[in-house]
Amino acid sequence: MQTRSVGILIFEQVEVLDFAGPFEVFSRTRLEPGVESRRSLDTAPFTVFTVAETPDPVTATGGLRVIPDHGFGDAPAIDLLVVPGGFGTRSLLEDEVVIEWIRKRAEEAELVTSVCTGALLLATTGLLEGRRATTHWGALDLLAELGDSTHVERELRVVEDGVITSAGVSAGIDMALLVVERLHGRAVADETARYMEYVRR
Amino acid sequence: MQTRSVGILIFEQVEVLDFAGPFEVFSRTRLEPGVESRRSLDTAPFTVFTVAETPDPVTATGGLRVIPDHGFGDAPAIDLLVVPGGFGTRSLLEDEVVIEWIRKRAEEAELVTSVCTGALLLATTGLLEGRRATTHWGALDLLAELGDSTHVERELRVVEDGVITSAGVSAGIDMALLVVERLHGRAVADETARYMEYVRR
Repeated sequence: MQTRSVGILIFEQVEVLDFAGPFEVFSRTRLEPGVESRRSLDTAPFTVFTVAETPDPVTATGGLRVIPDHGFGDAPAIDLLVVPGGFGTRSLLEDEVVIEWIRKRAEEAELVTSVCTGALLLATTGLLEGRRATTHWGALDLLAELGDSTHVERELRVVEDGVITSAGVSAGIDMALLVVERLHGRAVADETARYMEYVRR
Repeated sequence: MQTRSVGILIFEQVEVLDFAGPFEVFSRTRLEPGVESRRSLDTAPFTVFTVAETPDPVTATGGLRVIPDHGFGDAPAIDLLVVPGGFGTRSLLEDEVVIEWIRKRAEEAELVTSVCTGALLLATTGLLEGRRATTHWGALDLLAELGDSTHVERELRVVEDGVITSAGVSAGIDMALLVVERLHGRAVADETARYMEYVRR
């Protein structure tokens, strides 16, 4: 079957659940319900991979070490771009290589999403200008500063306005399930949540 | 400050959120509330690491590649043992090296926990005999078969009976938050959930 590619950016001090939540959702979604369908890729609508600036291992918050599937140099086309957050985003705000990569991949993508303080990176690329957006509660003010014409939503868990941004850490799971719902319908999203025993918010 | 060590077992085809959820909770818990306290380890009550049979990279479900912090041969003492699940558990049920490692580490640990089908591994070691326990909804019957005298709880998300077992995938987050609550009180657990923007169940 035809699949969409999901590229998840990872970097030093990326928050673990910020990337692992959407990774879980997109990689475990199946168009056929149940547990058995998840043993193969036959009805998997997404191909999910991680991308980092280089192919070297990345250390996430808490010390979890992840080997990216691709570096910027060899990453395949990305249909759905996921930009997670974490303390590591702060230094990336001034990293032109990363910001430029996000800007370029976002232009080419069908859909751009962020989790937590990943929204700060999107704001820095200019992608959130004129849009409603959110981030982790601890970074709402900073998001307002970075995005001159961004309307910061302070109460919503997931904000859809062309770009899809979500609140902190675990909200990335709800963001990803909403993307599944938009692309494949409510039943597929709810069934994926049920497989994960996750109660959608 | 004195910390407890949290050893999280990982293996080929471990479910991503099964280990990443508890990893996030334990590694981001702080006794001092707020975002800033999480920039350092000063008030971190847990030291968290992953352990696999060998130090080689492990491929989780969906293809996420993780470098374990330790192999069985060099893992430090484990106070809290976390056994996650995933399709990879099935072959481990007959892997005497892994089962024996879990049995030995469980004996030495202050607390033993499982997420999802990790309970099947605990059942195989005999640790769930005479206890109430749960697992992913798709494996409840198998858990009943493996644990002769195990009372399988089919409706609960987290089951405490000496050993703490949890339902599927995302329920591991609730299990970990409950452990935080038992060891450090409700306020610390709730504040960690708030940092993660997770609504406890």
